[in-house]
Amino acid sequence: MQVTVGEIATFLGGQVVGDEQRLITGISSLAEAADGDISFLANPRYEPMLEETSAAAVLVAKASASARVVQIVVDHPDFAFAKVVQQYGPQPRPMAVGIHPTAVIGEGVEIGEDVRIGAYAVVGDGTRIGAGCRIFPHAVIGDDCWLGEACIIHPHVTVRERCQLGHRVTIHSSAVIGCDGFGYASVAGVHHKIPQVGVVIIGDDVEIGSCTTIDRARFGKTVIGSGTKIDNLVQIAHNVEIGEHCIIVAQVGIAGSTTLGKYVTMAGKSSAVGHLSIGDQSVIAAGAGVTKNLPPKAVVAGAPAQDIKSHHAQVVYQRRMPRLQATVKELERRLAELEQRVKDNQA
Amino acid sequence: MQVTVGEIATFLGGQVVGDEQRLITGISSLAEAADGDISFLANPRYEPMLEETSAAAVLVAKASASARVVQIVVDHPDFAFAKVVQQYGPQPRPMAVGIHPTAVIGEGVEIGEDVRIGAYAVVGDGTRIGAGCRIFPHAVIGDDCWLGEACIIHPHVTVRERCQLGHRVTIHSSAVIGCDGFGYASVAGVHHKIPQVGVVIIGDDVEIGSCTTIDRARFGKTVIGSGTKIDNLVQIAHNVEIGEHCIIVAQVGIAGSTTLGKYVTMAGKSSAVGHLSIGDQSVIAAGAGVTKNLPPKAVVAGAPAQDIKSHHAQVVYQRRMPRLQATVKELERRLAELEQRVKDNQA
Amino acid sequence: MQVTVGEIATFLGGQVVGDEQRLITGISSLAEAADGDISFLANPRYEPMLEETSAAAVLVAKASASARVVQIVVDHPDFAFAKVVQQYGPQPRPMAVGIHPTAVIGEGVEIGEDVRIGAYAVVGDGTRIGAGCRIFPHAVIGDDCWLGEACIIHPHVTVRERCQLGHRVTIHSSAVIGCDGFGYASVAGVHHKIPQVGVVIIGDDVEIGSCTTIDRARFGKTVIGSGTKIDNLVQIAHNVEIGEHCIIVAQVGIAGSTTLGKYVTMAGKSSAVGHLSIGDQSVIAAGAGVTKNLPPKAVVAGAPAQDIKSHHAQVVYQRRMPRLQATVKELERRLAELEQRVKDNQA
Repeated sequence: MQVTVGEIATFLGGQVVGDEQRLITGISSLAEAADGDISFLANPRYEPMLEETSAAAVLVAKASASARVVQIVVDHPDFAFAKVVQQYGPQPRPMAVGIHPTAVIGEGVEIGEDVRIGAYAVVGDGTRIGAGCRIFPHAVIGDDCWLGEACIIHPHVTVRERCQLGHRVTIHSSAVIGCDGFGYASVAGVHHKIPQVGVVIIGDDVEIGSCTTIDRARFGKTVIGSGTKIDNLVQIAHNVEIGEHCIIVAQVGIAGSTTLGKYVTMAGKSSAVGHLSIGDQSVIAAGAGVTKNLPPKAVVAGAPAQDIKSHHAQVVYQRRMPRLQATVKELERRLAELEQRVKDNQA
Repeated sequence: MQVTVGEIATFLGGQVVGDEQRLITGISSLAEAADGDISFLANPRYEPMLEETSAAAVLVAKASASARVVQIVVDHPDFAFAKVVQQYGPQPRPMAVGIHPTAVIGEGVEIGEDVRIGAYAVVGDGTRIGAGCRIFPHAVIGDDCWLGEACIIHPHVTVRERCQLGHRVTIHSSAVIGCDGFGYASVAGVHHKIPQVGVVIIGDDVEIGSCTTIDRARFGKTVIGSGTKIDNLVQIAHNVEIGEHCIIVAQVGIAGSTTLGKYVTMAGKSSAVGHLSIGDQSVIAAGAGVTKNLPPKAVVAGAPAQDIKSHHAQVVYQRRMPRLQATVKELERRLAELEQRVKDNQA
Repeated sequence: MQVTVGEIATFLGGQVVGDEQRLITGISSLAEAADGDISFLANPRYEPMLEETSAAAVLVAKASASARVVQIVVDHPDFAFAKVVQQYGPQPRPMAVGIHPTAVIGEGVEIGEDVRIGAYAVVGDGTRIGAGCRIFPHAVIGDDCWLGEACIIHPHVTVRERCQLGHRVTIHSSAVIGCDGFGYASVAGVHHKIPQVGVVIIGDDVEIGSCTTIDRARFGKTVIGSGTKIDNLVQIAHNVEIGEHCIIVAQVGIAGSTTLGKYVTMAGKSSAVGHLSIGDQSVIAAGAGVTKNLPPKAVVAGAPAQDIKSHHAQVVYQRRMPRLQATVKELERRLAELEQRVKDNQA
């Protein structure tokens, strides 16, 4: 890249503090920036790095008077930086236009404008692929699916029959959408499979990580709300309903029929048992195991999960246990001694 | 679907309480049922829903006198309902008959009657595919494998060389059967790979979830017993032996050489370290980490796992810790006061 | 296999104690060995098995005087056994020479000598495949990747654009290398994707398990050091740096920007939050959740992780809690009684 600070500021609608003519040739984090790089400061905690960085320019929310580096003042430095990376950063090779001759397209498939489909991709009968979708090599889309516009389906993704994706949905490699839910009727010592005839419905602007599995509903639908982002290796069981704009971090597991409100955050490796209702804007800490319904704005940690302050207090109390036990032992000794003394006095 | 209550009752061998001529046009859960739907009541806890449901008919184990809805009395409502769904529910498009022209079939492959193989599937040399198997697009079966009858292999499954599947085994997308176990000999600071030359042997009627990984044995075999059901994202290490009819829920991990008896349940995210023996009918709660052998019918929770009652008691005790600590502090105060008083008395 | 004990000893540079002419026809563990098998004794704990084993010969570090079985004395019996298995054990069918006609090779791809590429593999534009690589069917290598010599890429692996693999790297099925990191800038209730334009750099002699996901860096690089071994279903987030010769067991999760030194062991299901530094030779027990920086040679357990001895003590104290609570209650009773007695005396 070859662009001046002034051009970037104009693109972002930001204010330059310093030399507008400074040439930007790369993109980096504050810590790793080399001469010519542009970077950003999102967390005020790292402000001292403004003085040390080798970056040529830094996006900031508020200009620092003491920093010698060129600054561009913008409202949301991290978001602005994302735009800079998108606009000026390294671009992947564009996918070849059209449908690769080896792609297998079923009967009655409807394909929108400017759809690109890679080598060996398979699209089932009756499926609809919206305009501008990118289906990478080796993706498999089942029969009678519905994909909105501008979806990105990475290599080795499986979308099973009848599932629906909104607009601008991205699914990463080896994720599986619409596999069977895990349900059996156990009769006389044999687990009989319960057919899983429902679907998965995914809203707009959803991103789903690699090797994440989202089960189709037993009947009805498993739902992922618009704007929700799901990381890698997450398990979402049948009939789960996730609201809009949730953040589900890697290796989370959500058991069957549990419902999440809007703006719920589940940190890495946390989990929820089945048939729960988790309120809007709840935050579930890393590794927490939720076993009860949560009201809106709950913040919980631990397994079984409890209010995060109680959890933290409990961790402290646990670490004090050796001392507590010693204290109790000493109390016992002193009490026995005192009992003896009182007895002696009475005698 | 268009079928009367009477026809369904006859199919199930059940007793109708109410209008046999009622027309059923859909399938649903009690909570979501709309007019025309058939549903079922498996858990007596939900019996009050019989009065509220909009369903046209409900499968029940025992007829409710107060419910106005048409009831069909059967032995196992959930199992009976599974049969109804299978028989009358939405049917997936049938897979095309025969072997897709793009499938790559190795030398010396034996293929039974009515086998269907999808686009781009790969079957290695010397492999045997039993009658009635469905191999979906993009499945890869290695050399010298053995598949029983009526197996279903979903897209993007990998079955590595020499592994054996019984009859009616279903494997979901992106699962990997027979990948190398994780074994190294560390000499002078270098981890040398120990060849993993064993296999995986899977019994009859086993189901394996998406993105589940089952390692081949170092030598000998990793075994999954008949009737066992395994959910998504489960890790089963080399030389593990799982008995018959076990239930292994999502994100479970079982370390090398551990043995499970029959009818063991491992709930979501639970785990067992290596070289353990877990007795028949044991139940391991969600998130539990088993570190010791378990006798038959053990029920454990927590990490490290212990008897579930002790675990629950411990959780309660932990939450009482702030109070306990306060109590001890108060005891200390009172004891010091009393000591002083006794001392004063003596003086 | 048909080889004498003497020939194996010569191959290993070991000393035979017993009959050099003994014919070896198979390979097994001590416990499962049948007549004709060779086995090994690595853990002195199992020495009594030397007297019971049906093996024909056993690799040992020190000859046992009482054992009747033929022994071959070598420095590292497990490593020596790995060599025997490699040399004489069952060999997989060799992959067909050359590039399968259905493989799709991009423009400007550089392919070294003796590279074998299987059916339907896809190699992107500008990618370099080193000599002796084995790319199995259905592997997808993106544009502008760099693979060293003798890499093994199993079926359904995805390596995304611009990632680099050293020499002798093995990647197991459905692993995903270089998928997008999980990063968003949340503005006015919308999570905007932060482009992930960095790469993944993998050293030499690295092995990566099935369904493991390694995210590309936001910018810069995610790094896996030479000699490191990673098991199945592991999540490694963007900008993580793992040192050389680490052991990362199944279902581990490492959050963004965390750095591991050399020879770190993370046992199964353990995890580390983001932006941590974990010192050389640290050991993180199964299921532990690391939330703070660790110095070199730390050994930690529990969640939040602490020194393993403190953790074990804490587990013991927790299990004593019912007794402690009873003790405190009894102290209260005795103290109240004594208070009353002292009061009565004074009266």
